[in-house]
Amino acid sequence: MRHARVAYNGLIQNAMDTEAGIQLEDGRIVEESEVTWLPPVEPKTVFTLGLNFADHAAELSFKEAPKEPLVFLKGPNTFIGHRGETVRPSDVTFMHYECELAVVIGKTAKNVKKEEAYDYVRGYTVANDYALRDYLENYYRPNLRVKNRDTCTPIGPWLVDKEDIEDPMNLQLTTYVNGEITQQGSTADMIFSVPHLIEYLSGFMTLNSGDIILTGTPKGSVDTKVGDEVITEVEGIGRLVNTIVGEEAFQTN
Amino acid sequence: MRHARVAYNGLIQNAMDTEAGIQLEDGRIVEESEVTWLPPVEPKTVFTLGLNFADHAAELSFKEAPKEPLVFLKGPNTFIGHRGETVRPSDVTFMHYECELAVVIGKTAKNVKKEEAYDYVRGYTVANDYALRDYLENYYRPNLRVKNRDTCTPIGPWLVDKEDIEDPMNLQLTTYVNGEITQQGSTADMIFSVPHLIEYLSGFMTLNSGDIILTGTPKGSVDTKVGDEVITEVEGIGRLVNTIVGEEAFQTN
Repeated sequence: MRHARVAYNGLIQNAMDTEAGIQLEDGRIVEESEVTWLPPVEPKTVFTLGLNFADHAAELSFKEAPKEPLVFLKGPNTFIGHRGETVRPSDVTFMHYECELAVVIGKTAKNVKKEEAYDYVRGYTVANDYALRDYLENYYRPNLRVKNRDTCTPIGPWLVDKEDIEDPMNLQLTTYVNGEITQQGSTADMIFSVPHLIEYLSGFMTLNSGDIILTGTPKGSVDTKVGDEVITEVEGIGRLVNTIVGEEAFQTN
Repeated sequence: MRHARVAYNGLIQNAMDTEAGIQLEDGRIVEESEVTWLPPVEPKTVFTLGLNFADHAAELSFKEAPKEPLVFLKGPNTFIGHRGETVRPSDVTFMHYECELAVVIGKTAKNVKKEEAYDYVRGYTVANDYALRDYLENYYRPNLRVKNRDTCTPIGPWLVDKEDIEDPMNLQLTTYVNGEITQQGSTADMIFSVPHLIEYLSGFMTLNSGDIILTGTPKGSVDTKVGDEVITEVEGIGRLVNTIVGEEAFQTN
């Protein structure tokens, strides 16, 4: 099953993907274009992986990939839903998309071993974890100007139940900028797999239902500009559409 | 006015400090010992400053203090209230308290200048931002094992209205371990002041009401052990009492 959170008819509603269209919890079937898509899970604790694909680490001129997961947190200000607009800040020269598999935790997890890790997963969605490269300092966890800008983490459209995904560690990741493929990779090439990440994180803190892990991006980042349509797609999970706008779109004078 | 959030009579209630005792929103006056203290603001986005006092940076063997604010985020799992128990993980050899002034944002802030920064502050509370030093890697933002363990950020007891604090940049910070003073400093010695931090953060992202900034700690960190009572005090804001327990206190077998 594929689940979404949408705004329609003055309400935030849970929705399901059906053959007839998007079915809202009030029973109505609506067109995709009639709703405002929200992140499929309300973001609480969101973990982000840095450099979790060796080819991407090399692309950023890091001589070697991390020896243990490089994880940092993102704040709620940064998330928007499918078909949303992301602001390109006027003070940057490099704004890179990052197509990522997002893992949604389904129940409280503490000291979970790899072998049982999928028992604690509810499902998966797609993220585009934009980075403002101008401000990247070093190998270690990036500063908030790189990774915590308003609107810079589109996520969605669907939360797909884990039962529907045969092998989350073997999914194609593809990014399209204005219809052209610019990034291709596979979750098979993650340095630290989804079970490894759940074991690592739950080994020193509690993961809760609704927590999200953004698992990192492969190589293929290019700069994106105001007006670009960026689609990040994870095989079997969804196609997340995003448009980049300038800061002036949010100015009132 | 001093505000708290407490659990009493099966409810989470807002409370005020009065001469007669703690007044709950249902009108009752209760003793401090009758309530369970919660963080005075429900933590959403919580910013934490690293190395915001030059003497503390030197104490940690960093040759120079940061040239711009060194900020990272904390997750909700790490916060507990006044008189709570903090778990000392069994895998660490250095668990350092950190007495800090916590600034609570009062309204939406974007591109705020230093001169107007206090207009966006609701008030202040006290934090003890424990660090597990074993895992500290380098100058840059610490990893989650250092700073994001469950229960490792006591905060409270009171949220004090900004109107009641004449100069937040001139307050004594004091830590007592088992009744002995082990850390003394002043908010006057911050490298980046509260107005500077609000200008910096709101310059690239939106701050929202209820967001919290933990402003960093001066020198004087010492290791703390299971059984220690640690009191962090900020002059005019409050005395935050915390007790350290072992992981076995949370084992059921």
